[in-house]
Amino acid sequence: MNELENRLIEWRRDFHKHPELGFLEMRTSTIVANELETLGFDLEIGREVMSPGHCMGKPDDDVTKAHEKWARENGAVEKYMDRVSEGYTGIVATWDTGRPGPAIAYRVDMDALPIYESEDESHVPVQSGFRSLNTEMHACGHDAHTSIGLGLAVKIAENRDRLNGKVKLIFQPAEEGARGAISMVEAGAVDDVDCFIATHIGIGVEQDHFVASNNGFLATSKMDVRFKGVSSHAGGKPEEGKNAMLAAANAVINLNAIPRHSGGMTRINVGELHAGSGRNVIADEAKLMIETRGETSGLNDYMKTCAECVIEGAARMYQVDYEIELVGEGISAKGSTELAEILHGCAKENGLTSMVLSDESAGSEDATFFMDAVQKQDGYATYCVIGTDLAAGHHNERFDVNEKSLLQGVETLFASAVKLTNK
Amino acid sequence: MNELENRLIEWRRDFHKHPELGFLEMRTSTIVANELETLGFDLEIGREVMSPGHCMGKPDDDVTKAHEKWARENGAVEKYMDRVSEGYTGIVATWDTGRPGPAIAYRVDMDALPIYESEDESHVPVQSGFRSLNTEMHACGHDAHTSIGLGLAVKIAENRDRLNGKVKLIFQPAEEGARGAISMVEAGAVDDVDCFIATHIGIGVEQDHFVASNNGFLATSKMDVRFKGVSSHAGGKPEEGKNAMLAAANAVINLNAIPRHSGGMTRINVGELHAGSGRNVIADEAKLMIETRGETSGLNDYMKTCAECVIEGAARMYQVDYEIELVGEGISAKGSTELAEILHGCAKENGLTSMVLSDESAGSEDATFFMDAVQKQDGYATYCVIGTDLAAGHHNERFDVNEKSLLQGVETLFASAVKLTNK
Amino acid sequence: MNELENRLIEWRRDFHKHPELGFLEMRTSTIVANELETLGFDLEIGREVMSPGHCMGKPDDDVTKAHEKWARENGAVEKYMDRVSEGYTGIVATWDTGRPGPAIAYRVDMDALPIYESEDESHVPVQSGFRSLNTEMHACGHDAHTSIGLGLAVKIAENRDRLNGKVKLIFQPAEEGARGAISMVEAGAVDDVDCFIATHIGIGVEQDHFVASNNGFLATSKMDVRFKGVSSHAGGKPEEGKNAMLAAANAVINLNAIPRHSGGMTRINVGELHAGSGRNVIADEAKLMIETRGETSGLNDYMKTCAECVIEGAARMYQVDYEIELVGEGISAKGSTELAEILHGCAKENGLTSMVLSDESAGSEDATFFMDAVQKQDGYATYCVIGTDLAAGHHNERFDVNEKSLLQGVETLFASAVKLTNK
Amino acid sequence: MNELENRLIEWRRDFHKHPELGFLEMRTSTIVANELETLGFDLEIGREVMSPGHCMGKPDDDVTKAHEKWARENGAVEKYMDRVSEGYTGIVATWDTGRPGPAIAYRVDMDALPIYESEDESHVPVQSGFRSLNTEMHACGHDAHTSIGLGLAVKIAENRDRLNGKVKLIFQPAEEGARGAISMVEAGAVDDVDCFIATHIGIGVEQDHFVASNNGFLATSKMDVRFKGVSSHAGGKPEEGKNAMLAAANAVINLNAIPRHSGGMTRINVGELHAGSGRNVIADEAKLMIETRGETSGLNDYMKTCAECVIEGAARMYQVDYEIELVGEGISAKGSTELAEILHGCAKENGLTSMVLSDESAGSEDATFFMDAVQKQDGYATYCVIGTDLAAGHHNERFDVNEKSLLQGVETLFASAVKLTNK
Repeated sequence: MNELENRLIEWRRDFHKHPELGFLEMRTSTIVANELETLGFDLEIGREVMSPGHCMGKPDDDVTKAHEKWARENGAVEKYMDRVSEGYTGIVATWDTGRPGPAIAYRVDMDALPIYESEDESHVPVQSGFRSLNTEMHACGHDAHTSIGLGLAVKIAENRDRLNGKVKLIFQPAEEGARGAISMVEAGAVDDVDCFIATHIGIGVEQDHFVASNNGFLATSKMDVRFKGVSSHAGGKPEEGKNAMLAAANAVINLNAIPRHSGGMTRINVGELHAGSGRNVIADEAKLMIETRGETSGLNDYMKTCAECVIEGAARMYQVDYEIELVGEGISAKGSTELAEILHGCAKENGLTSMVLSDESAGSEDATFFMDAVQKQDGYATYCVIGTDLAAGHHNERFDVNEKSLLQGVETLFASAVKLTNK
Repeated sequence: MNELENRLIEWRRDFHKHPELGFLEMRTSTIVANELETLGFDLEIGREVMSPGHCMGKPDDDVTKAHEKWARENGAVEKYMDRVSEGYTGIVATWDTGRPGPAIAYRVDMDALPIYESEDESHVPVQSGFRSLNTEMHACGHDAHTSIGLGLAVKIAENRDRLNGKVKLIFQPAEEGARGAISMVEAGAVDDVDCFIATHIGIGVEQDHFVASNNGFLATSKMDVRFKGVSSHAGGKPEEGKNAMLAAANAVINLNAIPRHSGGMTRINVGELHAGSGRNVIADEAKLMIETRGETSGLNDYMKTCAECVIEGAARMYQVDYEIELVGEGISAKGSTELAEILHGCAKENGLTSMVLSDESAGSEDATFFMDAVQKQDGYATYCVIGTDLAAGHHNERFDVNEKSLLQGVETLFASAVKLTNK
Repeated sequence: MNELENRLIEWRRDFHKHPELGFLEMRTSTIVANELETLGFDLEIGREVMSPGHCMGKPDDDVTKAHEKWARENGAVEKYMDRVSEGYTGIVATWDTGRPGPAIAYRVDMDALPIYESEDESHVPVQSGFRSLNTEMHACGHDAHTSIGLGLAVKIAENRDRLNGKVKLIFQPAEEGARGAISMVEAGAVDDVDCFIATHIGIGVEQDHFVASNNGFLATSKMDVRFKGVSSHAGGKPEEGKNAMLAAANAVINLNAIPRHSGGMTRINVGELHAGSGRNVIADEAKLMIETRGETSGLNDYMKTCAECVIEGAARMYQVDYEIELVGEGISAKGSTELAEILHGCAKENGLTSMVLSDESAGSEDATFFMDAVQKQDGYATYCVIGTDLAAGHHNERFDVNEKSLLQGVETLFASAVKLTNK
Repeated sequence: MNELENRLIEWRRDFHKHPELGFLEMRTSTIVANELETLGFDLEIGREVMSPGHCMGKPDDDVTKAHEKWARENGAVEKYMDRVSEGYTGIVATWDTGRPGPAIAYRVDMDALPIYESEDESHVPVQSGFRSLNTEMHACGHDAHTSIGLGLAVKIAENRDRLNGKVKLIFQPAEEGARGAISMVEAGAVDDVDCFIATHIGIGVEQDHFVASNNGFLATSKMDVRFKGVSSHAGGKPEEGKNAMLAAANAVINLNAIPRHSGGMTRINVGELHAGSGRNVIADEAKLMIETRGETSGLNDYMKTCAECVIEGAARMYQVDYEIELVGEGISAKGSTELAEILHGCAKENGLTSMVLSDESAGSEDATFFMDAVQKQDGYATYCVIGTDLAAGHHNERFDVNEKSLLQGVETLFASAVKLTNK
């Protein structure tokens, strides 16, 4: 095993052991910043590369403050803490060769999930001592992504003479829930980018395989809805209540009854509903967690518009107020075939079994916002997948990757950087 | 049997045989007009005593025209037809003694119901040959009311010297569905009235009994609701429809879910719902027939306001338009005890078993609009009930009254006219 | 124009002028029977080729009797009337060459739609005097199908020596609503059939074009649902009612809320809902017309099973009874490529632009029952489309075909009969 | 202030400071037991006077165990702990004079509410240092009731010679939520009782006033409903879920739509609804907290029966399972006038302003089960109210009684014991 591979594994296990939820990746991002600055990258951090007004579903100040404390106590690099302590944890690290050439960007994501990691002895992180030490978990592989991003940085620094133009490494917060990308796009993170490459490990692709362009992402909107009515004693003064639970119940049913669309696949779900505060009290508050999806952004917009009408109507029925908060969003996107062909070539040269294109549905992703922005400015974009053996499916408490994939990912991505800046 | 009693029975049977629905009482009202003018009453007819803008649930022109033809062919008195042929069939007949004294008004109603009368041999109208000759039926006793009104007119004319002030006889159309009274109130029919007395036969009061003040009427609103959406092929383009049936279905359920009221009895019903035009077509139209009730006008207003919100919200949910048409309305009212005491006395003098006051619930009535108007101008009002043996309940196909009650009614009412104008 | 073409047009216009709804095609089928018997075909008629227990959505006896009278007065051929007068109007006409060879069946359908035909002067049937003389209309082209079937019979009789084996012509009733085919399948109409070919004109295929195998039919179920509760006076005794309208309203909403299926396209629609009998009466009856569809029979079964649960649950909620009547059904089917290739060849030889296979969604069809039955006994089946210029879409009041397609259809089908029986 | 009054206040403040929820009154009941045994009463405790199978809404074992620990640490009397440590905390204390005479029972309740007591300086328990030291609160006056019960015991013991027959003091657990009485009735606690008197302080009756018979209690049922479905990924496999949230939402709406009843007042409320476990997961579980009420037990039964049908139907609609747990119940009851007259006399003799009867609606109470049982065995029963000045309404965080009422209560009740056993 070469030295880089050792470092990839070390990083990945360290991040795995210290998972942080979206917009709270303070420990992770300060460590990333420190490594990158040491290597010689120019850094933009936090508000420099994130638009605060476009951060969806960001935790409130109390949660952020509490986590800041945790990060400081658990190994965050102090000198960067000021710039990320409010939860704006994104980083754009640029290597400018000074020579003419295109600007290439690679995106990796850093956040973990609110899943309690398995304590089973057969679970590798347990065996090898890097199981999560808090109640969150890297159950989607973003620990591996961050590690690959750092490995790519090392290769770039070490092989600076082989590159031209600029290479930008984008470390994105809050991909889970499709919340963080848009704020970096809005802050201009890819305004100068000619080629954009996002990366994911796993998602159904086998070990030693590679998909150069995954096109199956569904457009999605995540919404929190709050109905606010008036409580009243249900026995004594039923007529004085404005029943938020009844509004919510009507919304739930009729959201599910939004008509199917002849243009393609759509989805809707109300995942959680909580209403009321006591058996004999008219419920004055109800909260819903909703998700729409569509095969295209247009189909998702159709679902979202219908959903808004249903919610407004349900509130009106029971004379209650409502708020809809958009807490996550992803659009659909199609990779640029020209770019995918190049990555496909790099993967094959690195000994991987590669396919150019896959349309497998793969949930939703907010990297699509970067892709859409770059393509709109006539650039190229793709979303590639690095295959790996999974111990269990994504978002499962026993999820684990094969660390062999880390170096495979780094090498394929680095090869693409060389090829793309030397065309 | 005296001569007046013979005439009462004759009139009643003639009206029974020729029933006419609300706002179509052309034959009935022209016969009434003719009798009253002959007796020497001053007449105001049709638009003179009815505000067209306040006629709720009036049949459309085609129906009205078709019935005009029927009336002319079935004995309507031609010389009054011009004044009632558009369906404004109300009459106010005034006997002004020229002497000082109060203005006393008696209201009777003239309309029949869309019920097919029994053909059973044991049904008295069949036996005696005065069964309805069309598909409507006097199944609520308004034939008897009209007859009593004419009998009272005869007594007034014959005993003119015993009276002072003015006596007004109000022949109202369209009491069924609570539709006609308000238009006469709005036209000023009781603007000069000091004492108002409405009358009903039956409604649970036994033969030879009398109730001087029935206070159990529920306030009510009758509404027709029409949701208007957009049709679409349900298989081919489900997303292009705006589903009026779904709006209507939500309205139906949530109208029934309007909270009970601690202030007293409330009711709501959606009696009919019709939606859609074909199995594979998204329904672009839905119609509902709704009725709210309340123990008081305030309680009915509560139900109506909630109902309007539900309907608006249901329409909004499915992005459809809607219209609410008020097609009938009654308020609650309490009789004036002073006036009831006088009628109570008259009934007893005429040999009836009388009670001053009853709170038995007795459905809804739009005579309450007259009562409310008179009481608001510091007059007195009451709603009295003339007992009778019923062959079957009101609105039953075998309904029939005991004709003995006709003269009892006339004599009690006439006695009250004497007493009230000689105080 | 050759003589056969003249006859095709004559037949088609005569049928167009005398449209008959499903299970009422008495005039049409007796004329068909007469022509076929004259040509020398062996006939099986009515109950001989239809299973009464499998006729879905058959009109009731009163309607059937009334139409029998109409048919006799409008040109039905008397000698066959006894065999079709109860509404079993299907015919299987067999030409048995007596020589060895396969049994080939061609299906055409004969029924019209309850659509009032346009009276516009620009509408060809108006101009040329063959507009419908009743309130129904051949707005889907089954008049053309029947005519093509007769033309094919003429060609067979005239060219008897070129054929081997058997040719069966199946004239099916009640294709609209997907109601008639199953009863002929159950009666054994295709038990001996090796190759089955169903035909439709139009449905999106252009003039002079041909599709040898249309595979886009959706499986479908048509259901009539009746909720039966208990009526009660809504003001007086609301608690005594069992509200069928509320059950129906809940069913409507929740039928629309049946979850989407990841396996492919599904549809549901409640096209009509009628409930209640009076504004102040708790509705004791409600009727729904429902339709489910699925890209496959399995998906349609999923929708149907969910729908049955929703209906049962809605009834239970309000303590009412219910009945579900299946009034139409179609399954999905895929044509046999071997057979389609042969038809494709025949069409090209006849100068048509042909394609072997189309997956365009084309609504639902109960010919799929014949196809499924034949394929299950290891035969071959296909559903072909004869292109035509349409004046307006199917089921539109201005629908009209280009009669040039009639002979094109006959010749292609006849060519296939020759080829298939001479393999 | 006499000595008894001092002790009443001391007891009440001690109980106030140590509130215990229903079926957890271990500290309270062991202190009560100790006082009563010391006075010479015969005791029956726990399972001796409670039927375990009839304890509704009893906390689970973990909660009970945890509270047992708390009770031991906070002053419970150890020697009785074994008999109440499983949460069966009821006590029947009997004083048998040995002389002939009737058996008279007085019921007081001991449980507190899950309300966090006000920390406001103006709140008397804060000022005087007896504010709750945990998170529960005596916000309904049961601390006063228990104190009055002990005071009554003292008077009985001190004045034993003035009494005949037997006096039973019933200390009931879990009156809140109407859960504890039925288990004592079923265990036979009032099988030998001739006169039963339940007591409440406050509930709208002013200081120095007394109501000898409060008849306004509503029959009620408290139910917890749990729908259990199957979860599934909402985007990936929506058809594999069985959606418990949709069942619950339908239940909520249609429970509210249960028809009003012409026989009197009814109520229903779903106070809480919690469903689902994640935004993109089909909810496999939903919980509802429901309450029905009726002016009479018959009306409440009507609501309950309808509710059960709605719940069953909603579950069936979405193919989910359900459980209904009855967690509280009260019936309606009317006091015995003969008994009320005697209490009325005693109150007046003690200087209180008394009324025999009040029909004010006063929520629900499970003392009605005792009343019903005694009346069914031809005994007499009543529910009396001891007026007091309240600092804030019942169940309010600032609720407080005027302690002057304690002695007033004791003296009136004791006087009734003398009178009733000396008739």
